[in-house]
Amino acid sequence: MTHSQRRDRLAARLAADGLDAILISDLVNVRYLSGFSGSNAALLVFAGDTPTVLATDSRYRTQAARQAPDVETAIERACGRHLVGRAVADGAARIGFESHVVTVDGFDVLARELDDHPAAQLVRASGTVEELREVKDAGEIALLRLAGEAADAALTELVDSGGLRPGRTEREIGRQLEALMLEHGADGPSFETIVAAGANSAIPHHRPTDAVLASGDFVKIDFGALVGGYHSDMTRTFVLGAAADWQREIYEVVAAAQQAGRNALDVGAELRDVDGAARRVIVDAGYGEYFGHGLGHGVGLQIHEAPGINSAAAGTLLAGSVVTVEPGVYLPDRGGVRIEDTLVVGERSPELLTRFPKEFMVR
Amino acid sequence: MTHSQRRDRLAARLAADGLDAILISDLVNVRYLSGFSGSNAALLVFAGDTPTVLATDSRYRTQAARQAPDVETAIERACGRHLVGRAVADGAARIGFESHVVTVDGFDVLARELDDHPAAQLVRASGTVEELREVKDAGEIALLRLAGEAADAALTELVDSGGLRPGRTEREIGRQLEALMLEHGADGPSFETIVAAGANSAIPHHRPTDAVLASGDFVKIDFGALVGGYHSDMTRTFVLGAAADWQREIYEVVAAAQQAGRNALDVGAELRDVDGAARRVIVDAGYGEYFGHGLGHGVGLQIHEAPGINSAAAGTLLAGSVVTVEPGVYLPDRGGVRIEDTLVVGERSPELLTRFPKEFMVR
Repeated sequence: MTHSQRRDRLAARLAADGLDAILISDLVNVRYLSGFSGSNAALLVFAGDTPTVLATDSRYRTQAARQAPDVETAIERACGRHLVGRAVADGAARIGFESHVVTVDGFDVLARELDDHPAAQLVRASGTVEELREVKDAGEIALLRLAGEAADAALTELVDSGGLRPGRTEREIGRQLEALMLEHGADGPSFETIVAAGANSAIPHHRPTDAVLASGDFVKIDFGALVGGYHSDMTRTFVLGAAADWQREIYEVVAAAQQAGRNALDVGAELRDVDGAARRVIVDAGYGEYFGHGLGHGVGLQIHEAPGINSAAAGTLLAGSVVTVEPGVYLPDRGGVRIEDTLVVGERSPELLTRFPKEFMVR
Repeated sequence: MTHSQRRDRLAARLAADGLDAILISDLVNVRYLSGFSGSNAALLVFAGDTPTVLATDSRYRTQAARQAPDVETAIERACGRHLVGRAVADGAARIGFESHVVTVDGFDVLARELDDHPAAQLVRASGTVEELREVKDAGEIALLRLAGEAADAALTELVDSGGLRPGRTEREIGRQLEALMLEHGADGPSFETIVAAGANSAIPHHRPTDAVLASGDFVKIDFGALVGGYHSDMTRTFVLGAAADWQREIYEVVAAAQQAGRNALDVGAELRDVDGAARRVIVDAGYGEYFGHGLGHGVGLQIHEAPGINSAAAGTLLAGSVVTVEPGVYLPDRGGVRIEDTLVVGERSPELLTRFPKEFMVR
């Protein structure tokens, strides 16, 4: 789908919502709708035939022309204010704005543009573009595949070269993995790599430290690659040296839960039922209290986006959404296991974007 | 300065501003005041003796206890709402909030907590902590030094190993430089590395592409390292093979402007005069129209923070502020030069944090 087609979908949505135009302030949404990825920008999209306008500052003149050649560009430091002015000048009366993004101070700046236009108003429109982004198009899925492949290749090289061994630190392994992702085509890590060894593996979101890996440790690695703005997300848990029975047991529980979660990724499935399918396996095994987070989340231009897959989620899985499935069991002060993949939901079996093996691995 | 001392400075400021407490929603400000660096948090600081409260969600229970051991932690997903409730329960009437950070939707959530407390109100308090952050303490400067050293070491290794040569791409060099920073102690790059070769060097903020370096090219590299949350920022411009007279000329103009800017970094100097000192050199040489951006900016927990050093800036330089000096001359479709350092402003000569040489270098 081209950026222009994405804007057409948004325009149809605006018309249905009774808006004449919408000011897009969220930079990820600006990128989704226009291709422009600079750090200061806003976009004005009309419900009718009036062409879209991208505002950015002079640093980005060339980049905007290259990345968003099919929209008019206005070079203005105060992007949002300028575009609200454009909207009223073009006759828009009901102008949507992203009330989940615009700050209280920022709203005042926008509202002053309406001082001389009593018929015009700013209307809250939160999450409109995020909803469109939930269903990925073919170009997005192609980039998500590349992101998954870069992460797979990096972890494979790390493991095959003996990078997971007693004596190394969490931080060393995290840095090496991030460097390997760059070598394998990533533009960067998709978030700060988690490497958690021994008892640290019981902390769901552990930041790598100078803790030294030891024989018998769990090593939990949660990481991803960024390619063309799109993120992958994968967790694998290894055991170093020799595994204890309790390690093997919780690994098998989590692996079965993850399989159950993946099996539940059907178009139209209730999000909370997908969470429930995996959670039930862990609860039935007696570890329910040690799985304290949701099962997964959407992945795309952001590492966390719609839909959330958890026990409180409303809504159903849509064809073309890309989500993680990541159950875990964390035994405080002992160790934890999480197994996570990123998958594309479709009419057939979900497509696995993170293909590194998941069987119990002692290194 | 300890986090507790930073909070004491803020408390004194609150008392002076007539606020009973302030809700800190900006995550960088939360980190500055508490040490906690998770991705979902807020902080409540009182003007009086009531102890500070940090709110974060259950994922960060352990991390919060480790990073912020001296504040009470509340485990709550809706951090801001919870803390406003705490503020009114503790008798605060005038509760500051960061109106430059809290969104329109987020404000409504906070305001609902006051429904049953007609005497309490939310008061705009934008930029309060950012002002405190402008003057760095010794611990901050130590981290900024390490960030500068990691960047210096990486660029030295890149250049000494022959990494800048015709035939390589901008992207290859950017990735190698980022990997070298990790090897030299950085936690990551402090922003997306800019490598701009040939005519691309005329674009102030160019993103690396597959463009191949050729003999005679300018190669402009703008990058930095992140250490313990603190950023460095440095630009160097090289010529490959042999330099043309026009390249030597604009390089010398920019180098003289950069020296003039550094010489103007006196405590108490008007910010706009610092910009003017460097800009005058470029204007006098006849290149004024090709230097379209400000001279510099503060650097710390964010890559861009107070003070801005440009022709429209109000205010003066403070002792202990850390700023960049980065003039440039960009000749469209031909090439450009920028030379940038990060420096600590003090009573004596500014301390240079980015020490890689700046003389005209043909590689």
